[in-house]
Amino acid sequence: MMFELLYWDGLQGRGEFVRLALEEAGATYTDIVREPHGMPAIMNLLQSETEPHPPFAPPILRDGDVLISHVANILMYLGPKLGLAPRDEGARFWANGLQLTITDLVAEAHGTHHPIASGDYYEDQTDAALARSADFRRKRLPKFLGYFERVLTQNPDGNRHCVGNALSYVDLSLFQVVAGLRYAFPRATASLPERSPAVWAVHEAVRARPNIARYLASDRRLAFNETGVFRHYPELDRAD
Amino acid sequence: MMFELLYWDGLQGRGEFVRLALEEAGATYTDIVREPHGMPAIMNLLQSETEPHPPFAPPILRDGDVLISHVANILMYLGPKLGLAPRDEGARFWANGLQLTITDLVAEAHGTHHPIASGDYYEDQTDAALARSADFRRKRLPKFLGYFERVLTQNPDGNRHCVGNALSYVDLSLFQVVAGLRYAFPRATASLPERSPAVWAVHEAVRARPNIARYLASDRRLAFNETGVFRHYPELDRAD
Repeated sequence: MMFELLYWDGLQGRGEFVRLALEEAGATYTDIVREPHGMPAIMNLLQSETEPHPPFAPPILRDGDVLISHVANILMYLGPKLGLAPRDEGARFWANGLQLTITDLVAEAHGTHHPIASGDYYEDQTDAALARSADFRRKRLPKFLGYFERVLTQNPDGNRHCVGNALSYVDLSLFQVVAGLRYAFPRATASLPERSPAVWAVHEAVRARPNIARYLASDRRLAFNETGVFRHYPELDRAD
Repeated sequence: MMFELLYWDGLQGRGEFVRLALEEAGATYTDIVREPHGMPAIMNLLQSETEPHPPFAPPILRDGDVLISHVANILMYLGPKLGLAPRDEGARFWANGLQLTITDLVAEAHGTHHPIASGDYYEDQTDAALARSADFRRKRLPKFLGYFERVLTQNPDGNRHCVGNALSYVDLSLFQVVAGLRYAFPRATASLPERSPAVWAVHEAVRARPNIARYLASDRRLAFNETGVFRHYPELDRAD
């Protein structure tokens, strides 16, 4: 299998959820933006007036003739091919539902620094960002983390995985979202390991997996920064 | 087939995208909240400490032992069962990607009246709502509508459907989002039929389908109102 990932350069962003699945599985893939003429190729696809399945936005996965966009959609497609999804059909929809909850959490994390206009600068919407971040830290973040703690502790197959008794792409994505939240909100998430021990344990277990550890130490893993989804603006972070 | 839909009462909301698919297919389903003890049943499920697959939020579909949440996930599950999804696997992921773009549009429409805190009142976040609505009307709405116009016009099977040459749940959802936007933003969408003729044609064609027309005229179809996703606050709507 030879996959192509089409995503922006310079940030982990939403593309990182796809990269983690490909890296864990040891899949062969090309990060198109880091190839010669990669960026024009992505822009041509986004602006194509003839592509039968035009994508709305990156990340996009190309697998031969198939073009797929939206993180959860890409992971639902890749999961069985990479051995990162359950075999049972019902369990696959459970995994997809969990991934879509992660999608919502990621969108809300992005909203903390862009509550008014995603195309404008953070610096032009700081008042709203302060108010929205307070709501996120105090209400939304505890709700999401409490939910995933329940998902893990209520899993009949044990609390080491979100879905069944094996690693899935949902665990990888949960690792990434926890890592991002710890970067963006170090004070608000300081107590996360104690308050959400099962979520934290998944984060730690994924981080230690050989292929993931190798990836995280490689130059393919970009550092978190203030152009991605998870941004560290100290004024938006409080212990509350 | 006997499905159960678990969703709030008193609003169309995100549940409406599921209802439209069930109604078009003539499926037998129960809208649990409108049954005796429906609301406590939903709350019990949301708060359950034993449910192996706890949902984060409604809408939720129950099909026997299977519980599925998130609109796009429910529709991807229901699509093949209701004859509202393509048979080809690649086309199903195309449909799901389109549905997830609709999901994003719906979330952004909700964000126009709740840019700061989804749990607070609109009246407590009107300044931010005015700013966010302006960005939505001027930039985001044209981008989304222009995208779906391209999806239709670039469809090799013709511009009458989003996916292939047959009705799918994506067409039904596109109808609903256009109906909601026309309700919430009558001035900003006044030119929609002229500017997005293929999108508008899908809206009109879906509205005229016998099962949909019958549903829309029934008391099962609630009116749009200011508790749902699409709310008409005149101050947020401008022709720009």
